[in-house]
Amino acid sequence: MPLKYLVILGSVRDNRNGLRVSKFILEKLSHLPHEFKLLDPLELNLPLVRTPLHFFKDPKEAPQILHSINKDIVDSDAFLIVTPEYNQSIPPALSNLLNYFPPASYAHKPSAICCYSISMFGGIRCSIQLRGMLIELGSVSIPSLFSISKVTEALNEDGTANDKTMDERCDKFLKQLEWYAMAIKEHKKTIPPS
Amino acid sequence: MPLKYLVILGSVRDNRNGLRVSKFILEKLSHLPHEFKLLDPLELNLPLVRTPLHFFKDPKEAPQILHSINKDIVDSDAFLIVTPEYNQSIPPALSNLLNYFPPASYAHKPSAICCYSISMFGGIRCSIQLRGMLIELGSVSIPSLFSISKVTEALNEDGTANDKTMDERCDKFLKQLEWYAMAIKEHKKTIPPS
Amino acid sequence: MPLKYLVILGSVRDNRNGLRVSKFILEKLSHLPHEFKLLDPLELNLPLVRTPLHFFKDPKEAPQILHSINKDIVDSDAFLIVTPEYNQSIPPALSNLLNYFPPASYAHKPSAICCYSISMFGGIRCSIQLRGMLIELGSVSIPSLFSISKVTEALNEDGTANDKTMDERCDKFLKQLEWYAMAIKEHKKTIPPS
Amino acid sequence: MPLKYLVILGSVRDNRNGLRVSKFILEKLSHLPHEFKLLDPLELNLPLVRTPLHFFKDPKEAPQILHSINKDIVDSDAFLIVTPEYNQSIPPALSNLLNYFPPASYAHKPSAICCYSISMFGGIRCSIQLRGMLIELGSVSIPSLFSISKVTEALNEDGTANDKTMDERCDKFLKQLEWYAMAIKEHKKTIPPS
Repeated sequence: MPLKYLVILGSVRDNRNGLRVSKFILEKLSHLPHEFKLLDPLELNLPLVRTPLHFFKDPKEAPQILHSINKDIVDSDAFLIVTPEYNQSIPPALSNLLNYFPPASYAHKPSAICCYSISMFGGIRCSIQLRGMLIELGSVSIPSLFSISKVTEALNEDGTANDKTMDERCDKFLKQLEWYAMAIKEHKKTIPPS
Repeated sequence: MPLKYLVILGSVRDNRNGLRVSKFILEKLSHLPHEFKLLDPLELNLPLVRTPLHFFKDPKEAPQILHSINKDIVDSDAFLIVTPEYNQSIPPALSNLLNYFPPASYAHKPSAICCYSISMFGGIRCSIQLRGMLIELGSVSIPSLFSISKVTEALNEDGTANDKTMDERCDKFLKQLEWYAMAIKEHKKTIPPS
Repeated sequence: MPLKYLVILGSVRDNRNGLRVSKFILEKLSHLPHEFKLLDPLELNLPLVRTPLHFFKDPKEAPQILHSINKDIVDSDAFLIVTPEYNQSIPPALSNLLNYFPPASYAHKPSAICCYSISMFGGIRCSIQLRGMLIELGSVSIPSLFSISKVTEALNEDGTANDKTMDERCDKFLKQLEWYAMAIKEHKKTIPPS
Repeated sequence: MPLKYLVILGSVRDNRNGLRVSKFILEKLSHLPHEFKLLDPLELNLPLVRTPLHFFKDPKEAPQILHSINKDIVDSDAFLIVTPEYNQSIPPALSNLLNYFPPASYAHKPSAICCYSISMFGGIRCSIQLRGMLIELGSVSIPSLFSISKVTEALNEDGTANDKTMDERCDKFLKQLEWYAMAIKEHKKTIPPS
């Protein structure tokens, strides 16, 4: 059963290391029998959220781009978020993007976090906050976490890894995401979630 | 498909309000076509953990009670934790109990949190910490949370509710737990999680 | 010893309830023998942070508005943050604003959080994440928290309270902020923090 | 102005690495012009908290050991907590010890966290939860954190460090604790906190 993954980037910073991480991840995904799409907040260039999509009384008044992104979220079977941490917290570009859309769009879909930093801590403090946010949005946060410490040493700019354990850890992580995405998608066919 | 729930209490305090909450929850569970078992840290009376079960070099040297509890965890399909918060945090009786056992025993099973307090906040700060702990143990924390504010007003000592919304919220919460427990149990039959 | 407070709003949402909260707080501050200034992300209208002030190689290349806000932060003795929570998390307008400036600007100054929501939970989940962020920025998060549950019932649009306990709680909260701000400002005169 | 530090250990596990960490810290403290005392939950051997000290109607009925520990907490000017993380969370031996005593005993005193682990993450996830708990108890959590990654490589069993940066980081950390402890103690002489 083919799945649709939505990969969401967290950073819009100049010289963001997220690009080498997303290259690494997307290359991995390209070998799986699934589809994937990338949401990059730098390209989307959304302003700070003043009215989330679901707060428009008349949905037609909402900008077309919000409908388009929402469709991507609704259509996907699983979320894969690639994010640094800014001051221990979720990057505003990421929380801003996620906040635009209703829990109904995220609900009953698994999400997986790939976090990174140039320090030893690999962005795990952001992952703690992000799990809380994803759960509030109704997504199921899979237990496995793919954290990348010292990201500029672990990955080259072209997204290749310097270290075999990176591949092994990522494969295991993606396997868990696939497992939960399939379990949930299958069960939805039998019993619609309420 | 019948499920096995393991209900775990968080408090051992004198006059704990957890008893009225667990009565309410257990009564609900008794109407479902599933089995359930209660783990009460007050009855188990485990000392502060010095050696978790999986740290014994020879498992035979571990106290029999640890093997027995571990079997309950391994045999169950889902966890339902009923807990207050002590100073914003996980009650030590609860973290002590959970810490005794290996992630392998909890992995690939959903967990649900029912938290309560006598204040308006309903123990939600404990739930944030507890989700982190459960995920680290490999359990999947379901998005739905059943928090009970002003617990002594919401529930009587015999576990009956003063308010219909309690029943509705609890039914919805248990339905989500059941949904995820079934999705995961079914999928395990097809593809063993790795 | 007069103090300088910097009041920072967290929301830019249309119809934000933060305005009634900030009116309430600013009225309280106007009776104290201190100065205060308001930072409103809606007025500042900063784009999503791509280059924080301290990441510019040549500070002169940074937008003037960043230098101006940074001066406000540096000049203040204490921070008072008035914020809702968006999906359990820090509003992106707030994290975006705070992320633009270096820890050196916030360090060794106390911060206090006034959080609010239309639910019973009063925004306390945001406060947990925000404390982590403020501490990472070097600010000392005072223990007292001023959370406002059911904010539209607790406060009128003009910032007046419907309930005496609001005044008492706020006065106590502001007193603790003053106490720590003075303790720290005094001690800086004797021993510069390192 | 001499200060009184209370050093509190978090672990009671067999073969706990906390001993090498506390040796390292206590040696550092022995060179400062301050007093310090150690609270070790393994020696105290308190049962899981059923009745905190302040919940006894007649304080005389509380065990003498609780009065004795409470006096240590009340008499101290600052807390220094040395702790691992168990499954991302506060060790139960530590939360159990802290929960026995009222916020009044901890209030208006700074606390500092030294966390450690055998992984790269140095126990920082525990520190996030612990800061929340300490703040709820009324203590001020200083921004500086002394986390020790790969603790068995960083410190020898006798508490000596293999690496100069350990000394530098610890000295800086202790200096910040001292600075806040002095600021607060001085200010209490002028204005009693309310």
